Amino acid sequence: MRANILLSPANVDELYFTGKTTVVIDVLRATSVIVTALNNGAREIIPVSTVDFAMKVSGNAFGGQTILGGERNTKMIEGFNLGNSPLEYTPEVISGKSIILYTTNGSKAIIKAKFSENLFVCCFNNLSTIAKHLVTLGKDFLILCAGTAGTFSIEDTVCAGKLITTMLSMDNSIELSDSARAAIALNKTFGKSILKMLKESEHGQLLIKNGFKDDLSYCSKVDSINIIPYYTSGIVKKFDNGSTNIEL
Amino acid sequence: MRANILLSPANVDELYFTGKTTVVIDVLRATSVIVTALNNGAREIIPVSTVDFAMKVSGNAFGGQTILGGERNTKMIEGFNLGNSPLEYTPEVISGKSIILYTTNGSKAIIKAKFSENLFVCCFNNLSTIAKHLVTLGKDFLILCAGTAGTFSIEDTVCAGKLITTMLSMDNSIELSDSARAAIALNKTFGKSILKMLKESEHGQLLIKNGFKDDLSYCSKVDSINIIPYYTSGIVKKFDNGSTNIEL
Repeated sequence: MRANILLSPANVDELYFTGKTTVVIDVLRATSVIVTALNNGAREIIPVSTVDFAMKVSGNAFGGQTILGGERNTKMIEGFNLGNSPLEYTPEVISGKSIILYTTNGSKAIIKAKFSENLFVCCFNNLSTIAKHLVTLGKDFLILCAGTAGTFSIEDTVCAGKLITTMLSMDNSIELSDSARAAIALNKTFGKSILKMLKESEHGQLLIKNGFKDDLSYCSKVDSINIIPYYTSGIVKKFDNGSTNIEL
Repeated sequence: MRANILLSPANVDELYFTGKTTVVIDVLRATSVIVTALNNGAREIIPVSTVDFAMKVSGNAFGGQTILGGERNTKMIEGFNLGNSPLEYTPEVISGKSIILYTTNGSKAIIKAKFSENLFVCCFNNLSTIAKHLVTLGKDFLILCAGTAGTFSIEDTVCAGKLITTMLSMDNSIELSDSARAAIALNKTFGKSILKMLKESEHGQLLIKNGFKDDLSYCSKVDSINIIPYYTSGIVKKFDNGSTNIEL
């Protein structure tokens, strides 16, 4: 089993993902929102790569069961129901609902990786659950860091490093690419206090400035949630691991 | 003064560099070749982004004064005079010559950054000379890691981290982006033995396999050369720092 990391989706095209097992990470905040929403009872998440398409999908859906969520420049988009703070995605608001999610980096990264054979969604909140599942799967895997506007984000890379470090504690035979070794080293340096790392990160500072300080604290919690979001045919759902009736 | 790093040129387009002070790093091996060739008396380096263009430029030049150098898949290209090993660029071979250089990652990275206001070429060999010059210049700067096929290379990132670390020892007020802080941490982890890091890197292993083990040892030498290669109008020349007759 070999671990590789793309530090940003800008480096490759969609076909690069064909046949791969991919894990998308966008700690601040798209994948934290997806993990939270599914854990809090959302029926499914439909990631979209444009606001126009979000509106179109929403227009085709039956009223009441669909929620438009996401952000532009960290803030809620006009005409949307929710922003991109995981704290908004409470059971009361989203239970049983389909959420159409548009975000600047995360939802686009998922769409870009859509040709993957397996496509999982990870953040600090569900890190060990994803780690265990990948070790069980035993396949080469690629972590796709959503990054910020096409470039490196320290929080996504540290999360990727922590994911691989956790996996190595279960299986120390995993082969590592340059980027995987770098991410492991970065987790060693910056992963001791994830909240501090988030607060000092460029994107974290922007979120604090825009009033989302509590999101950093929420997103920093390792293993607070134990679900595996799985993307297939345009939709992210909970992967019912271990069930005989796998929900794909 | 602010330090930022692009871990790969794939993330941005050419216009991104307009007005910027950029430092291109491709340790294995294009920028090590450029630094070596200029130090050994080459008149100039003309980086090109296609083999066809290399042939065209070469065809327009007068015979005897022009050398075609570079690689595809680490090896010399048919019809070229030299490969991409800095050890080939001896004074006997290249003194006074114009070198047209095509490489898979490095020469393309320089071309991509051509709209920069200032564009320097760096490797471990001339690291402190570049560091001092950037501190003297006092401008925000961007390090462009050439990477490998559009993705992360550990050797370029560690070199970038060492460059900024060296600059911080001269001016500790330099502001750092996420990627700059990450590169500094990676230099701390992997920069203690640069040769070891190069040998373990993906690109280093490919070079060893293809018979270029000695290149790693050469490219690992910090501060063996004290020149500043400077790109302007399609050509990389030695920047005559401190002279009243700056050669631009």
